[in-house]
Amino acid sequence: MLTLGIDTATKVCSVALCRDAEVLASYNINIGRTHSEGLVPQLEEMLRRCKMKPSDLELIAVSQGPGSFTGLRIGLATVEAMSYSLKIPLVGVDTLEALAYNLPIAGIILAPVLDAQKGNYYLALYEWQQGVLVQLEATSILAGNDVQDKLAAYNKPVIVLGEGAKLKDNCRGQVSLGAAQVRMPQAVSVALAGQIKVAQGQVNDCFHLVPTYIRRSEAEELWEKRTQK
Amino acid sequence: MLTLGIDTATKVCSVALCRDAEVLASYNINIGRTHSEGLVPQLEEMLRRCKMKPSDLELIAVSQGPGSFTGLRIGLATVEAMSYSLKIPLVGVDTLEALAYNLPIAGIILAPVLDAQKGNYYLALYEWQQGVLVQLEATSILAGNDVQDKLAAYNKPVIVLGEGAKLKDNCRGQVSLGAAQVRMPQAVSVALAGQIKVAQGQVNDCFHLVPTYIRRSEAEELWEKRTQK
Repeated sequence: MLTLGIDTATKVCSVALCRDAEVLASYNINIGRTHSEGLVPQLEEMLRRCKMKPSDLELIAVSQGPGSFTGLRIGLATVEAMSYSLKIPLVGVDTLEALAYNLPIAGIILAPVLDAQKGNYYLALYEWQQGVLVQLEATSILAGNDVQDKLAAYNKPVIVLGEGAKLKDNCRGQVSLGAAQVRMPQAVSVALAGQIKVAQGQVNDCFHLVPTYIRRSEAEELWEKRTQK
Repeated sequence: MLTLGIDTATKVCSVALCRDAEVLASYNINIGRTHSEGLVPQLEEMLRRCKMKPSDLELIAVSQGPGSFTGLRIGLATVEAMSYSLKIPLVGVDTLEALAYNLPIAGIILAPVLDAQKGNYYLALYEWQQGVLVQLEATSILAGNDVQDKLAAYNKPVIVLGEGAKLKDNCRGQVSLGAAQVRMPQAVSVALAGQIKVAQGQVNDCFHLVPTYIRRSEAEELWEKRTQK
């Protein structure tokens, strides 16, 4: 199944093309948030380089959040429009779960994190067991110090992925920060995870796939405060 | 140091941009050998997407071999011309060593392999120890079955990287084939490894960097056979 993967949940703008377990192309840009102007040209260029056209695509997988509110909206609007136009299925993948596909290695606990603002992090824990990704802990929002305490409690190697660079000094003992080349979101991981979800029967509706924000936006919180007065 | 990495040693055409340990961009195409027509446009597009120009580059790192004779010649000719034109240093990185940078994880033996034709493989063994890549065994040329015997002798997890897909059935017990998203050459790894080599004092001359072929080409072997008659 020729699958386009897209991840715009962080400042990384990432697109990839997989055919089943084979990676045909991946293109990742990490120069700041230029997704609104850059995503579609980047995607178009990758397809052209692969001598493919949008109508060749059979599935689109997208990083659904948590993550940057604007980034997710750009990603979802783009893939929903493509899924609708091309009449092909769409599947949403949790951004933290997709990060665990960056390191498909057994014997390690993977701790993908994303910035939840104000010193907080979205965190979920995963482990690859016999080639299958198992979620050890569901997503929670924790302060940086609490992330450290939670990870220190495991007696296996733990690798922090995602937007964890600021947690580097909190990584001690068996906990370490993943190296730059495996740490950040990659649309390849989204495409591979999405194909597995489709094989398990998950397909999303291009009119109703919504971002997983978890936390409400700053604007919503301010609105509530103001209307409660 | 703004570093361009290039890897054309296999059928993957890969370019990447790193600034020290930070990955700014990576662009990998794995649709067959189209390097001669595709490498420079791919590189130009990535730089443009990053709003950078060739004169911003400070270092070029290239995958030097072993690998495809033609692929390596295209990569080396391109980076030598750029290094000469831009007056910036050039550093060559062993293709197998660069592959070990795909998985910067301790506690695993990394076994990058490349196709040496006629059922043979180039193989070297590496392990990450305290954040430093250590070569456990230097490059040798082995038949597929001998690769299996060598790797089975280790009592740690071993992950086969590179052109090892055909060895999948030989991977048993603690030996496994790396998943597609971490297995193939990535110019990011070349750029990161190259920066470390430069920090250690290695710089190559843009007029004298030669591919590490190890084995002679088919043409050379035939020529020798014919002239010995």
